[in-house]
Amino acid sequence: MIKRALSVTREANFAEWYQTVIAEADMAEESGVRGCMVIRPWGYGIWERMQRLLDDKIKATGHENCYFPLFIPLSYFEKEAEHVDGFAKEMAVVTHHRLISDGKGGLVPDPSAKLEEPLVVRPTSETVIGTAFARWVQSWRDLPVLINQWANVVRWEMRTRMFLRTAEFLWQEGHTAHATEAEAREETLRMLEVYREFAEECVALPVVAGEKPENERFPGAVATYSIEAMMQDGKALQAGTSHFLGTNFARAQDIKFQNSEGVFEHANTTSWGVSTRMIGGLIMVHGDDDGLRVPPRLAPWQIVIVPMLRDAPEDAAVVDYCKALQKDLAGLSAFGEPVRALLDLKAAKAATKRWGWVKKGAPIVIEVGGRDVAGGNVSVLRRDRLYREDGKLDSAVVAKGKFVGGAVAALEEIQSGLFAEAKARLDANIAPAADWAAVEAHFAEGAKTPGFLEVQWSKPTGAALEKVVERLKGLKLTLRNVPNDAAPADGACIFTGDAAVERVLVGRSY
Amino acid sequence: MIKRALSVTREANFAEWYQTVIAEADMAEESGVRGCMVIRPWGYGIWERMQRLLDDKIKATGHENCYFPLFIPLSYFEKEAEHVDGFAKEMAVVTHHRLISDGKGGLVPDPSAKLEEPLVVRPTSETVIGTAFARWVQSWRDLPVLINQWANVVRWEMRTRMFLRTAEFLWQEGHTAHATEAEAREETLRMLEVYREFAEECVALPVVAGEKPENERFPGAVATYSIEAMMQDGKALQAGTSHFLGTNFARAQDIKFQNSEGVFEHANTTSWGVSTRMIGGLIMVHGDDDGLRVPPRLAPWQIVIVPMLRDAPEDAAVVDYCKALQKDLAGLSAFGEPVRALLDLKAAKAATKRWGWVKKGAPIVIEVGGRDVAGGNVSVLRRDRLYREDGKLDSAVVAKGKFVGGAVAALEEIQSGLFAEAKARLDANIAPAADWAAVEAHFAEGAKTPGFLEVQWSKPTGAALEKVVERLKGLKLTLRNVPNDAAPADGACIFTGDAAVERVLVGRSY
Repeated sequence: MIKRALSVTREANFAEWYQTVIAEADMAEESGVRGCMVIRPWGYGIWERMQRLLDDKIKATGHENCYFPLFIPLSYFEKEAEHVDGFAKEMAVVTHHRLISDGKGGLVPDPSAKLEEPLVVRPTSETVIGTAFARWVQSWRDLPVLINQWANVVRWEMRTRMFLRTAEFLWQEGHTAHATEAEAREETLRMLEVYREFAEECVALPVVAGEKPENERFPGAVATYSIEAMMQDGKALQAGTSHFLGTNFARAQDIKFQNSEGVFEHANTTSWGVSTRMIGGLIMVHGDDDGLRVPPRLAPWQIVIVPMLRDAPEDAAVVDYCKALQKDLAGLSAFGEPVRALLDLKAAKAATKRWGWVKKGAPIVIEVGGRDVAGGNVSVLRRDRLYREDGKLDSAVVAKGKFVGGAVAALEEIQSGLFAEAKARLDANIAPAADWAAVEAHFAEGAKTPGFLEVQWSKPTGAALEKVVERLKGLKLTLRNVPNDAAPADGACIFTGDAAVERVLVGRSY
Repeated sequence: MIKRALSVTREANFAEWYQTVIAEADMAEESGVRGCMVIRPWGYGIWERMQRLLDDKIKATGHENCYFPLFIPLSYFEKEAEHVDGFAKEMAVVTHHRLISDGKGGLVPDPSAKLEEPLVVRPTSETVIGTAFARWVQSWRDLPVLINQWANVVRWEMRTRMFLRTAEFLWQEGHTAHATEAEAREETLRMLEVYREFAEECVALPVVAGEKPENERFPGAVATYSIEAMMQDGKALQAGTSHFLGTNFARAQDIKFQNSEGVFEHANTTSWGVSTRMIGGLIMVHGDDDGLRVPPRLAPWQIVIVPMLRDAPEDAAVVDYCKALQKDLAGLSAFGEPVRALLDLKAAKAATKRWGWVKKGAPIVIEVGGRDVAGGNVSVLRRDRLYREDGKLDSAVVAKGKFVGGAVAALEEIQSGLFAEAKARLDANIAPAADWAAVEAHFAEGAKTPGFLEVQWSKPTGAALEKVVERLKGLKLTLRNVPNDAAPADGACIFTGDAAVERVLVGRSY
């Protein structure tokens, strides 16, 4: 059996494996502040790459970035009843603006500095951004308003898990206002498609894009769409959402405009977000028993050069050779950007560094020793094919020029290979289920890689929907989404026996 | 007299002019949340450019970005007495994590969801990052730790002014730990120099880099350095600071390591920050009576193309011509990046758009009408030379090819011209003052563009320094910094009459 770099395998304990990857790949750590994590350099570097690539797409579709306040006065929340019901249970509330000594060497909030109106730390910004939209929008000429912000938000979660559910997290939230329902609905779907494309092209994360059922809607939304990814344990991760808000928020916040006939109308608004949760998805889709594997488009460093030094006079020649290699690589362009090549000169053993980069998931690790320099070679380790069939490390000695000449193609191959692997797994683990019994059998105790089941249903609402949700809960299942590309219904609803109107995915979820 | 684009001139009322530029140039607005502003697209676009350029320099000097929690437990602050004294008076305190209905349609913090330990919204992150450093640093091999974070911070200011002093603001804060005092001091000065270079090269903002006197030190620092810029009203703006913290924070937070002899030592730490305040400096240094002038390196759009349309069939040809021009310009490279050229197709009159871009300060505005298309020309308006001597707009008709061929040189000229203009003003308004009477005379009631005075002093400390500070306060003056490149002292201290040890700048400040 091959000895792997991590102390726990995915098969032995997926949850523990996830935490181990996060620690060993230098992604994040507990901060000591309840529910908040420290995002470490490699993890934050991946987030910066996500930001750059997604931001380009958000700007290319006509949106501009702004920044809105962290704090939201309580009264803003009171206006949209459904929205506050959805969020009020888990918000951080600022009540004082000063500390004073408690007389015992400690500090306490100063009773004389109590805020007249408490402030909420934003859990999402519809209310505060809507208030700005109400100021900005007077005439149909002011529409559409197409805004995005990159920010931190806070939701007081009881049980937290790094990247997947933390009290504070980082995200982008887009907010738009339109003159007509049709335009706002088009925008909602446009951004869902931007998310699908970003997830699949950049994160190499295959997803199912579709509409969430009524019970899974964003509080206050008319329709919520999501991209759903499948983790290696078969569970679903909602990796991005796009909401059509109708005129619900516009009515609460008085976003109205004079149309071309001079009549006042409420705007139709949308909102959409992707967060650091996507990093959790990346780990659980691409990680293996040696650590993380980062798709080259997201890798802070795509190629890492590790010189094998011996504290000897020959070291200088090895370092010079590595510097020239780094320069050659940095002159290349992959995915429309300069190749990111690092020369790792930290004070540590070459083997320690090599395994460090394997665990971090750098796509290609190059080792260079005195013999490589003499022969004009490099030793190449590709993260996507780490071992040979005999279980030995698949490190190949290649002529330096040949490696440089093929480096861009190798990065492209790793990117598409990671996607293909995940896509094959997703496709293999979505199956139709003809009736409730089939669902029960599939998700029975001990079933492995349960994946998603596609079932036909009559799309019940209200109390009838609640009954369905309860029934699914008994199997620890939730409704994921109605895939945009699902076939039309042609049978009976597995819950009610009525004629089905569409196909919906069910699965276990994070 | 030339009719200018703004309703108020700098000379008539500098403070009102500043607010007017912010409004008319689409920079920011009041949010309705006390002390917090909304940063609008053009303002945020400038911040994004600042982030990109400064981040490149921070990374080039070996720092990695991370992200640390927004919330800091009270107990973290209690450890560093001087630090908490400096900040405790103005922090937002989170005391509850849930809201409930007040029974009258409103919301109140849920008394049953009171936090055991209140959380402070970070005013700066030394304490929480230091706690992480204590986990990360064990051996001399772990040093230096070179970290930066881009984040929002909150200081509960009583009087706020957009960009200059807001309760919430955006910044980067660098934090480093080193094995020796010498290395940490070197880092402190290295980052001061990075700030000077960034301010002068990118923001076209000439600054004086130097050490702040003892009374102006960051709470808990051993030494604080700053870059000081001079606004058009002669006042000083501290535009960036770099702090050598010695072992003060390391002792409070237990950041210690085993040196190469196996002995435990406390690390020496530094911190340094630049914030959205820099945008206030940009406005007050480069703005004029027609609005903002943005240095090309920071302009979200460097060249804006305004087609002059008449709702006529010829419009299509004008738009096509503009699109081709935009493509030509986007293919150019200025300051090592692709030229950012916008084609403004919004539904508004060409003259309205032109003046909108003038007020925003886009470096070059191109207008294209049917006659320009017929002649193969463009009408060019440069923001740095808006009017001819006769007071008419200096819009020049130029052959399209000639304009494109000279566009990069024009952008470079605007960038260096803005710097030269500001630098000449700074130099002209720093003067030596031989004695206290000269200081009094210079800053007498009604004195215009007071600028900075350089005085010799004996660098008093403690109570003697407090007396100096009080005396300066009588003239509304503060000690700015001791310029790194100041000549050695050669006279008497203007405050005490003792032999002077150095030269220090005094001035009025924001």
